[in-house]
Amino acid sequence: MTAEKPVVLRLGKWPFSTEKWDKLKEIATVVDCESQTREEFLKDLKTKYTNVTNIVRTFPSVEQTGRFDSEIIAALPDSVVSVSHNGAGYDQVDPQPLTDRNIQLSNVTVPVEAPTALTAVYLTLATMRNYQIGHDALVQGKWTNPDIGRGAKLGKDPEGQVVGILGMGGIGRAIRDRLVPFGFEKILYYNRSRLDADLEGEAQYVGFDELLAQSDVLIVSVPLNPKTHHLVNKEVISKMKDGVIIVNTARGAIIDEKVLIEELKSGKVGAFGSDVFEHEPEVPKELYEMPNVVSLPHMGTWTKQALKNMEEFTVANVEHQIKTGKLLTIVPEQKDIDFKHPARA
Amino acid sequence: MTAEKPVVLRLGKWPFSTEKWDKLKEIATVVDCESQTREEFLKDLKTKYTNVTNIVRTFPSVEQTGRFDSEIIAALPDSVVSVSHNGAGYDQVDPQPLTDRNIQLSNVTVPVEAPTALTAVYLTLATMRNYQIGHDALVQGKWTNPDIGRGAKLGKDPEGQVVGILGMGGIGRAIRDRLVPFGFEKILYYNRSRLDADLEGEAQYVGFDELLAQSDVLIVSVPLNPKTHHLVNKEVISKMKDGVIIVNTARGAIIDEKVLIEELKSGKVGAFGSDVFEHEPEVPKELYEMPNVVSLPHMGTWTKQALKNMEEFTVANVEHQIKTGKLLTIVPEQKDIDFKHPARA
Repeated sequence: MTAEKPVVLRLGKWPFSTEKWDKLKEIATVVDCESQTREEFLKDLKTKYTNVTNIVRTFPSVEQTGRFDSEIIAALPDSVVSVSHNGAGYDQVDPQPLTDRNIQLSNVTVPVEAPTALTAVYLTLATMRNYQIGHDALVQGKWTNPDIGRGAKLGKDPEGQVVGILGMGGIGRAIRDRLVPFGFEKILYYNRSRLDADLEGEAQYVGFDELLAQSDVLIVSVPLNPKTHHLVNKEVISKMKDGVIIVNTARGAIIDEKVLIEELKSGKVGAFGSDVFEHEPEVPKELYEMPNVVSLPHMGTWTKQALKNMEEFTVANVEHQIKTGKLLTIVPEQKDIDFKHPARA
Repeated sequence: MTAEKPVVLRLGKWPFSTEKWDKLKEIATVVDCESQTREEFLKDLKTKYTNVTNIVRTFPSVEQTGRFDSEIIAALPDSVVSVSHNGAGYDQVDPQPLTDRNIQLSNVTVPVEAPTALTAVYLTLATMRNYQIGHDALVQGKWTNPDIGRGAKLGKDPEGQVVGILGMGGIGRAIRDRLVPFGFEKILYYNRSRLDADLEGEAQYVGFDELLAQSDVLIVSVPLNPKTHHLVNKEVISKMKDGVIIVNTARGAIIDEKVLIEELKSGKVGAFGSDVFEHEPEVPKELYEMPNVVSLPHMGTWTKQALKNMEEFTVANVEHQIKTGKLLTIVPEQKDIDFKHPARA
């Protein structure tokens, strides 16, 4: 325990965790980052924030500082021991330069799983059953349509359909659990490494190409990183079933959006349900205007409860780091690193 | 077994059950009803269809004949022993006059449960999470909204929320099973009679007023009949929580639609997700234009698989009636009647 309190630098807004922050202030000094631009942030790190020990950041704070890449990370004061990202996907932060500087990185795990999985289920149901098209038809006064019936073409039922989950982390497993009672013929998954039997639950492990070949609905749930960027490209889509439904609640850039638009036009991809886009908040008009595209403006965790849970989880990470020397949910890239940071409270 | 084959009169279209009908034709004569209006139908019953023994009808065939009320039923030839409705809700058919004439009535049970429950879950997720509003914002180029954030207000998570199911038949139970993994605080239900413990599953029985008082989301899943017509009226809504979400996948007329519009305007009802409307296909513009109303044009069973399953289930009812004397799924109103119809094949 040192005489000086740890200093936590807060990037972005934390409206739902005031109580938890007040508690943290008993053992730490909390400073709100006032830098308005990346340039200013880089300068402020060398002047105003020289004694910062822990950093927390939100997804929207990227607009304030830009990505936490090697440039930013090189500019962090030597006092920094941890960065905590307030979200599941930490593609805005580069783990390697942090590791190189002996700085721990955490993301949010459990609190994002249920709300994101719920969003994936919503998009799956919407695309399978053409609900969005039916709703739009109703609102346009076209309840019935003499050619196709009820304002929308007949949808598909889970009965006899195979759903494939690409990426079986906490969110993937939460999606699986919520899909089980719908009675799909099979729930398949592919993951970098096969899960232990008790974690697999009612999903069945298959190879990547097998997942593509068998899935009627493919749900993307892998983190975005250099290895998964444009993972779903022309070649990969060519291995899928004709008319496949693709759902994405991970990150837009995992799918090559230009290719996807072409594949939707040709009918190779039958429908697309997505909460995320490659250049969000920009979405190509061509994409969102297709009736078989159910798009959402990144609402995966867009509830008061989820945002509160996430913020509090991030504060808990910092608190744990201060009290024990280690963040609670260190990212996989740093799992085997022994940081040897001391407890400070 | 009589020399003459039973005669089955088909009302409406049966596009997905050709094979099953071909099989039935081995033991019955199948006649397609050619009457174009109610008047013509009443006349044809006395002239063309005097030897009909079994009638099957679809939901849309009401436009051809009107409701199967006492007038139609009085005009049926004495040879008729059964009427089979190709849907779950048989509010277009009056059971009592049929019973009085010793005519059995069946509806479709199991095949409608999964697809209708899926629709109820979709509407529940859509209304809780403001997805429809978010989608519309995105399509209008309003991904972000400086006042409320992500194009839509923050939604609600199942965590800490109580869902109430009004009516716990097969569809209600299928809804319950699909909601369990989402992690609601409680799933309550009210039913005319409490279910046996093994049928209750993870839902908890409460009185009607208790259901209204406790539910954050109320899902309507009772059949429409004279007792449930406008069951959800001004007084009933006044007993609900402020901002309650109401979901309806049963029949529009169970809710007093005029009252509902007022309660949505006042904010007493926070959102409405509905697949059915009181005067469908007419939906009041005032209702469907509200952003917190997620409306669908009666798509509960709008899949090829569901329609096929339903049609085949109805044919199976007729087949069973011919072979054993009894329909397979006689409606509850006739459960205790001993029709004493003989087998005919």
